Amino acid sequence: MNQIRRQPDRARSDRADLDAVLDAAAVGTLATVVDGQPWVVPMLYARDGDRVLLHGSTGAGALRHVAAGAPAAFCVTLLDGIVVADTLFDSSANYRSAVVRGNLTVIDPADATHALNLMSDSLIPGRSAEVRASTKKELAATLAMALPITPDGWTVKVRDAPPAQPEQIADSSGWAGVVPLRTVAGEPIPAPWIDADAIVPESVHRLVKGT
Amino acid sequence: MNQIRRQPDRARSDRADLDAVLDAAAVGTLATVVDGQPWVVPMLYARDGDRVLLHGSTGAGALRHVAAGAPAAFCVTLLDGIVVADTLFDSSANYRSAVVRGNLTVIDPADATHALNLMSDSLIPGRSAEVRASTKKELAATLAMALPITPDGWTVKVRDAPPAQPEQIADSSGWAGVVPLRTVAGEPIPAPWIDADAIVPESVHRLVKGT
Repeated sequence: MNQIRRQPDRARSDRADLDAVLDAAAVGTLATVVDGQPWVVPMLYARDGDRVLLHGSTGAGALRHVAAGAPAAFCVTLLDGIVVADTLFDSSANYRSAVVRGNLTVIDPADATHALNLMSDSLIPGRSAEVRASTKKELAATLAMALPITPDGWTVKVRDAPPAQPEQIADSSGWAGVVPLRTVAGEPIPAPWIDADAIVPESVHRLVKGT
Repeated sequence: MNQIRRQPDRARSDRADLDAVLDAAAVGTLATVVDGQPWVVPMLYARDGDRVLLHGSTGAGALRHVAAGAPAAFCVTLLDGIVVADTLFDSSANYRSAVVRGNLTVIDPADATHALNLMSDSLIPGRSAEVRASTKKELAATLAMALPITPDGWTVKVRDAPPAQPEQIADSSGWAGVVPLRTVAGEPIPAPWIDADAIVPESVHRLVKGT
């Protein structure tokens, strides 16, 4: 099967392509180096203009290491389809992926409210307007970090195509093509202590409709 | 929002939990260290017993670096739901994630046919039985790698729960809960050179039904 790096023409160089990939996903993989070894963790994130916001608990040791300025790479991948070729070798996947490289910075506590609102609204659009503001205690327990998007600090690759056409089609009755994949939301499940007749908020309705 | 590492009780220690997460996804993020910097790439993979199979083109320079025995970490994440709490701080995500750490080895060319068949059948179950065997030329152009799964070399974390229940429920009319997410396959799209009446193979039918 074709590995993602194989076709250099899959690379995209427009900043708008990067933003589109980052804005389409909610979770990515943060990688850094700890004692010379690769260290990875999946994280929820949001794009805030020219930076990627990430956050976690102030208690997480390795996160603190990353936050202290260690070099980081953040990878986001969306699997868009299974590419079924007439050979195993040409079978592949359609995908969008982005890697942002740089050094993480800790977000100033004065900016943490903005970061938490934006992170929440990225996951659940409009949610920050429906709930109370975050408390000082909550903000203090949140380690908000930012990874700057610099002109040379990112890579985007996209495959969005049928399988490679074989030079010789051995069997004209054979099938080749793409099975598209997408993420859909199911019916919202109320928490155990929520009344059955509680009104589902607009943000949740939008979430279900939007996926 | 709760970052994934925050609750230590989310960790799972049964090897069956690891296998379940690895077998449920098709793409992960491979991380290694190049010149002291973190280096990441999304890759298709398959689990083959006690190892994770990965492969790419023999032409990819950084992959060659990884294949030469550099330490690697491979991260797989499935986003299963959006956790909508009554505060931004407690909003989160339900997910399954696995990290496998170790040193990659290059798969012996004699074993490459098995690896390519297994990788293909992991992505498209049953496909290897429908198409011709891979040629020597195809196998030579494939860099198949394995990451061993060792007893101490992996971590699994799972969140599969409603939002944290607030100590005080300020507004009983408020809603909190989970919006479940899942990946579904759409109608198969034939490649441009495929006759409209070509028979869609069983493997593709299974793929569409199985997701």
